[in-house]
Amino acid sequence: MKSTKNIYSDTANLDRRKFLTSVTKAVGTSVILTFPRLSFAGKFWPKNYALTVQQVIAIILKEIPGAPFATTVDQLRTGTMDQMVTGIVTTTFPTLEVIEQTAKVGANFIIAHETPFYNNQDETDWLEKDEVYQYKIALLKKHNIAIWRFHDYWHAHKPDGILMGTLSTLGWEKYYNPENPRLLTLPNPVAVKAIVALTKEKLGISTVRLVGDLKQNCTRIYMALGYMDSKRQIAAIEEFKPDLFISGETREWETVERVRDGRRMGQKTSLLVLSHAVSEEAGMQYAVKWLQPKVPGIKITHIPAKNPFTFV
Amino acid sequence: MKSTKNIYSDTANLDRRKFLTSVTKAVGTSVILTFPRLSFAGKFWPKNYALTVQQVIAIILKEIPGAPFATTVDQLRTGTMDQMVTGIVTTTFPTLEVIEQTAKVGANFIIAHETPFYNNQDETDWLEKDEVYQYKIALLKKHNIAIWRFHDYWHAHKPDGILMGTLSTLGWEKYYNPENPRLLTLPNPVAVKAIVALTKEKLGISTVRLVGDLKQNCTRIYMALGYMDSKRQIAAIEEFKPDLFISGETREWETVERVRDGRRMGQKTSLLVLSHAVSEEAGMQYAVKWLQPKVPGIKITHIPAKNPFTFV
Repeated sequence: MKSTKNIYSDTANLDRRKFLTSVTKAVGTSVILTFPRLSFAGKFWPKNYALTVQQVIAIILKEIPGAPFATTVDQLRTGTMDQMVTGIVTTTFPTLEVIEQTAKVGANFIIAHETPFYNNQDETDWLEKDEVYQYKIALLKKHNIAIWRFHDYWHAHKPDGILMGTLSTLGWEKYYNPENPRLLTLPNPVAVKAIVALTKEKLGISTVRLVGDLKQNCTRIYMALGYMDSKRQIAAIEEFKPDLFISGETREWETVERVRDGRRMGQKTSLLVLSHAVSEEAGMQYAVKWLQPKVPGIKITHIPAKNPFTFV
Repeated sequence: MKSTKNIYSDTANLDRRKFLTSVTKAVGTSVILTFPRLSFAGKFWPKNYALTVQQVIAIILKEIPGAPFATTVDQLRTGTMDQMVTGIVTTTFPTLEVIEQTAKVGANFIIAHETPFYNNQDETDWLEKDEVYQYKIALLKKHNIAIWRFHDYWHAHKPDGILMGTLSTLGWEKYYNPENPRLLTLPNPVAVKAIVALTKEKLGISTVRLVGDLKQNCTRIYMALGYMDSKRQIAAIEEFKPDLFISGETREWETVERVRDGRRMGQKTSLLVLSHAVSEEAGMQYAVKWLQPKVPGIKITHIPAKNPFTFV
């Protein structure tokens, strides 16, 4: 048997998995623990038996209505489906720093909400000569880290995992309305200023951007965490006329200008821009709480990507 | 003859223009001033004769290499080509507030760098039921204001009008290199902190966003004012490896994450995000200086769109 350090190379994983699977079929799980050469698997076994990336993904997809989807960005982007999972990390953006920390905590499977490759479709052809891309791929290979996007499925979960994680963090889960999940109605008006303070404190954001009035009162709040297409954002503003539209990442020359003009015309909707990564991190932290009981033998750690910006 | 207030309605414009044109052809400009019913035109005439929107655009296009372009967003978006210009306003974004101020200064032609309709292609089908769009169109009609995009042509001017206006405002025009206009090389290293302070002061920006290190020294600066496609931004960062990449509007999950990863890997490029409108306003202010001598009888006013954001 190879050392623990090297056992997770592709071939070793495959051999080990095949071996465990066949032994299980042959003799049943209760016997395995007495089999001396398999003692390294004891911490996962029998309740917490070792899982491959594919098995973890299958466990997740069982919880998602309509999964698997014919078209989705939620694909395995690095690593292999066969590889044995030594630990899971959840994050919004699998940045180089998150990858380094993943290796440090001994995990080899990053469940990332967003793209590792600087484009939502995770296309890599255009990046092949990019030194940062090359470095990132090499680092992922060195640590044998698999990255799977958990974007479309997590949003498709009932309730939307990103939204519910955020609402819980803000203490707003009681305002969740399954009929219209993105639109919250507060029982009493709250000033934009207080909502800004709440999001900054609970989501750990140093500075946010506002198109609007800090003194304005809000009862109707539309949640558009992460990125949402501007045409859809503008349609939602027109349809629901929220007092406050909370966005992760948005487009200045699209939604931002529409909100600015709307306010000039007399419409009340203010726009609060949190920044992409920090707007969805609570949702990926919540993924730990949600997934851990389903894979009890695998340690799941949330490593936040953090806000890339300094505001000066 | 109709009153000055109403003379610029579509029909009146057309009649007046045709009338002036035919009179000019018949008798020559020098005679016109003595023609009593045309005395209202005296202030434009003969050197500064009244111009239609189309004539102003033609004067501009004469200065642009390769114009007219087969495909460009620089189209007339409201008003008519035939309308007589009472005054010109330049701006980045023709916001409702800019339109109101345009009417106040008695101008009826906005030369705008960016979209009035919240999308770069200026498509309006999707907005037909949007109340803000309807209000904006009604306001433009009420004041009979023409909007023409001056985006692609202004960037295609030699030198790029937005870039040169900004460089002049920053005192950096001496670093302009026609061989590689976007890349500036400073003679001595300057700290990011000092460049941030300079852009904030000279461009009138309250807060900027930085991915990088305020203490880092810069000599190579890449200018990507306004919006630039992320793949092009990332390719430029990879090709030129600037110390500082100055952007107007950018994409968080694309360029921003690439810069963040690059810095983690050891690359030096910092990213300074100014915000879209304020990053190009100096270029539209410069358009006044550039265009005024070409249409000496028409008053040109720069009305800044200003930054839509409050940073909290």
